[in-house]
Amino acid sequence: MKKFTVKVTVMLKKSVLDPQGAAVERALKAHGHHEPVSVRIGKVIELTLNGENAAAAEKKAAEWADSFLANPVMETFALSVEESE
Amino acid sequence: MKKFTVKVTVMLKKSVLDPQGAAVERALKAHGHHEPVSVRIGKVIELTLNGENAAAAEKKAAEWADSFLANPVMETFALSVEESE
Repeated sequence: MKKFTVKVTVMLKKSVLDPQGAAVERALKAHGHHEPVSVRIGKVIELTLNGENAAAAEKKAAEWADSFLANPVMETFALSVEESE
Repeated sequence: MKKFTVKVTVMLKKSVLDPQGAAVERALKAHGHHEPVSVRIGKVIELTLNGENAAAAEKKAAEWADSFLANPVMETFALSVEESE
C-alpha cells in the first residue's frame, strides 16, 4: 500500500452566482487595483489516503466527492492525484 | 493582451490545526468509510485577468495573494496559470 494525496477542487458551476468571488473583486478595486478581473472562489479538499495505486486512490476520492464532498446541483469538482512520500 | 486564469490555492500551514478538515474526517467515518484518511481543507481563488504574458499575470496574482488573499501567518499559497480562451 502506498500513500496518495488526492486534491478535490470544488467550484460553483459557472451559472451559479458567487457572492464570495464578487466580494473579492470589490476588495481588489477598493485596494486600488482597477484592472478588470473576474474572481470565483472554491474549495480544495486534500485527502491523504492509502491505496494500491493512483487509480484506486482517485476512484475512492471520486466516489466521496460525488456522494458528499461536492453538491452536484450547484458545484463541479476536479481531481488530481499524486503519490505522497 | 491575453486572458489568463490564475488559480491561487490557499492552504493552512501544516502546523495549524484544521477543524474543518477534522470534521470531514469524522463525516467520512460516520458514512462508513473506515480507511485511515487525513483531510485538510483550503480555498481556491480563481482570478481571470488580462496580461501581456503568463509571467506577468502570475506576478500580479502573486502580489495580490501575498498582500491580502492569503494570511501569511497561518496560510501558504501556490499559484498555477493557464491561458484562457
